[in-house]
Amino acid sequence: MLTAVSLGPGDESLLTPAARKALERADVVAGYKGYIELVPPALLEGKEVVSTGMMGEVERAREAVERARSGKRTAMVCSGDAGIYAMAGLLLEILEAEGLLDAVPFTMIPGVAAFNAAAALLGAPLMHDFASISLSDLLTPWEVIEKRLRLAAQADFVIAIYNPRSKKRSDHLDKALAVIGESREPSTPVGVVGRAYREGQDVRLTTLDKVDVEGVDMQTVLIVGNSATRAAGKRMLTPRGYHRKYAIGDKGGE
Amino acid sequence: MLTAVSLGPGDESLLTPAARKALERADVVAGYKGYIELVPPALLEGKEVVSTGMMGEVERAREAVERARSGKRTAMVCSGDAGIYAMAGLLLEILEAEGLLDAVPFTMIPGVAAFNAAAALLGAPLMHDFASISLSDLLTPWEVIEKRLRLAAQADFVIAIYNPRSKKRSDHLDKALAVIGESREPSTPVGVVGRAYREGQDVRLTTLDKVDVEGVDMQTVLIVGNSATRAAGKRMLTPRGYHRKYAIGDKGGE
Repeated sequence: MLTAVSLGPGDESLLTPAARKALERADVVAGYKGYIELVPPALLEGKEVVSTGMMGEVERAREAVERARSGKRTAMVCSGDAGIYAMAGLLLEILEAEGLLDAVPFTMIPGVAAFNAAAALLGAPLMHDFASISLSDLLTPWEVIEKRLRLAAQADFVIAIYNPRSKKRSDHLDKALAVIGESREPSTPVGVVGRAYREGQDVRLTTLDKVDVEGVDMQTVLIVGNSATRAAGKRMLTPRGYHRKYAIGDKGGE
Repeated sequence: MLTAVSLGPGDESLLTPAARKALERADVVAGYKGYIELVPPALLEGKEVVSTGMMGEVERAREAVERARSGKRTAMVCSGDAGIYAMAGLLLEILEAEGLLDAVPFTMIPGVAAFNAAAALLGAPLMHDFASISLSDLLTPWEVIEKRLRLAAQADFVIAIYNPRSKKRSDHLDKALAVIGESREPSTPVGVVGRAYREGQDVRLTTLDKVDVEGVDMQTVLIVGNSATRAAGKRMLTPRGYHRKYAIGDKGGE
């Protein structure tokens, strides 16, 4: 039995009962070191933990599949939602490649994703259509990423940016913000959230022309507003309707 | 004190401890009737419940703000994530319009959104960049929705579709799928999930040219794959990399 377990942002208050139960029942807990650290220690007691800094994620996923194949209840943990830019897909790919899709029962437990968490801390930026784009070009050509940024900006999506900046790719965020700026005002609100619901949490509301790129790392999520997004006090607010098609006095539909 | 509380898809196993605690502490629980029904009954005992089928959502939000202003601990509940197409924004708008942003402490508790839930039941469709689009034209002109669909398809986003079809708007989903089909193959996998993690849950994997539009209602979420999405057994799988830039044997980055 193999379960992809979403840990949520990291605070226990956002760990779902379903995720907790899956961890309680597991014989083996697998995951990237940084994610294992987010698991409440009591839930790891007496369990085999598969996690080394040396192993790549494909190798770790293979190990997890192998444990599950041998009959162990195996939980692969991910921060945020295991179904968003995370391990659920890789586990399925490996199960498929090894002909184990029918032999190994696979379950996915959804969770509070990183951009849900970031949005909650910022206010209400995701009240309207949005796109989520990762700036990591490890597995995706930069031209594809840039095209998506450009079209998402033209479509007036609120844009959540994952993996904004690493040491190797220090200029990606600058480039991405410039592409978005081709079709969005410099005054567009941008929320910058580091380590949401973890120690060192950092929540900032700024504008497209003033993002402190140096202060951003891989654990940061950015949310760029659409053309109607504004600041409401210290909060980031995307109105539900498009360009104030409704008035606050109106009775909206359900 | 005003709290926007995300209930998640509806099953208690996906209600976060933070949401439960906020409900336990509340004096008043406000929300659309259908959402109040998702709150575990024990958490409503002894509380004022603000919910009538007659009231529009703006009016209900005003009532909640009024209760909070008068000193009551008020929880506004939403299914899924209260920060995604939901009430968090409307509460902020009303607080702002009434000059209460500083006077009434406002907190938002993130949750498992409808498309996170749908994705988990389908397999792993959201492993790569995606867009979320609501087909409701109550507050957004249809031309804007159609433009977003077209650009999202061109950008090769996985596309989550909210509010796909109501009695009044029975042709929206047909139109939307046709627009997406302008730049995506008829064989593109589409996941159709009704009532995720609730009674009557219905999970189907089909293709862009074969979606059973008649079987879709407002409680359904659709996830349309990108150009690399495929079926893995009965599951929907979007590979992490773009067009197999990587091999399963590779060591991926973290």
